[in-house]
Amino acid sequence: MYKLYSMQRSGNSYKVRLALSLLKAPYCAIEVDILRGESRTPDFLAMNPSGQVPLLEVAEGRYLAESNAILWYVAGGTSLAPESRVERAEALQWMFFEQHALEPNLGAAYFWLSLVKGGRDLQTHALEDWMERGYAALQVMENHLKTRAYFAADQLTVADIALYGYTHVADRCDFDLATFPAIRAWLRRIEQNPGFVTMDWRPDAEVDDPASVAAGA
Amino acid sequence: MYKLYSMQRSGNSYKVRLALSLLKAPYCAIEVDILRGESRTPDFLAMNPSGQVPLLEVAEGRYLAESNAILWYVAGGTSLAPESRVERAEALQWMFFEQHALEPNLGAAYFWLSLVKGGRDLQTHALEDWMERGYAALQVMENHLKTRAYFAADQLTVADIALYGYTHVADRCDFDLATFPAIRAWLRRIEQNPGFVTMDWRPDAEVDDPASVAAGA
Repeated sequence: MYKLYSMQRSGNSYKVRLALSLLKAPYCAIEVDILRGESRTPDFLAMNPSGQVPLLEVAEGRYLAESNAILWYVAGGTSLAPESRVERAEALQWMFFEQHALEPNLGAAYFWLSLVKGGRDLQTHALEDWMERGYAALQVMENHLKTRAYFAADQLTVADIALYGYTHVADRCDFDLATFPAIRAWLRRIEQNPGFVTMDWRPDAEVDDPASVAAGA
Repeated sequence: MYKLYSMQRSGNSYKVRLALSLLKAPYCAIEVDILRGESRTPDFLAMNPSGQVPLLEVAEGRYLAESNAILWYVAGGTSLAPESRVERAEALQWMFFEQHALEPNLGAAYFWLSLVKGGRDLQTHALEDWMERGYAALQVMENHLKTRAYFAADQLTVADIALYGYTHVADRCDFDLATFPAIRAWLRRIEQNPGFVTMDWRPDAEVDDPASVAAGA
């Protein structure tokens, strides 16, 4: 069974929990509160020198970091991974886009506006940049989704899960998706997949059948 | 033959040219000067809505963006790609690290200090952040390389090429690698591989045997 170090309210951690749930893969989640410094202890830094969650134990004492690398790992050989070489690369293209165009803006805005008390006052200037670049990233996504149901391979893949992580909390950090109808339809499309769970869902119980928990969420 | 849209002085573009050269893969390079707006023309945006290089034509009218996704694509099935599932994920881990921890800091500093005339004065405040975060990323790399020759799978992989792209120009944008001996040894190790080419090397001629050009560079 996978052992996942994760923070409940982190979009990057949620991506992995969502993928594992869609795959009906049982796992054990260990909560790490980065806001209380729990990812900066000597013990945690020995597992991940970058001091970040999520972190997946892939073998005794062997740890994989970076949410999108973890997604790629757990999805290997499953329906969430594209089959052809070019479609795999296209899924990765969107996952790298997510990490440099979406996450540093929507993710940062979400962190400071939603998780850190008084964060808005601390980040007034940065917030302007995040909004501008975040909206530019959302426009690229909107244009792509105007003629497509998913980001790669005409099917739900890890690329969608990576992008869903922070896009679905856009309204919690000042972004307005009113002028992005294709993105809103895509969010709903993902949420209709069997096994979908919300970011609030906790995996502590009934990990063998997370879909049943999701249905009640 | 691959058709690559690339900018000579872009570290992200160089990554792909370096990989193709190491693989002895012939390709045709089309220079796109982003400083002159050549990646923002309607024709270019039709190929890549993100308006960025590098961009690889993988089939007639089908284009792959994001330097690290392109690296993954061209390295598929070659010696630059790890063989096992966990090692492939570990290589991706470092490639995602590169895109969110190294490239936004060293890449941004390199762009504004090395490529944009008067850029230093325009980015005084941002530069402080880039230096702090860039050094933190370099320290994570240094610690990893203290006991390892390469980043993943005990061999030269696309993870090393991704990280080499901007690390090797650190000294052109105020970063001092004097206290990072493991990184300096790793840079030299990469440069000793057959087929290695510098960022200045132009692929216009003799693309069938780039190694011979590199030897004379």
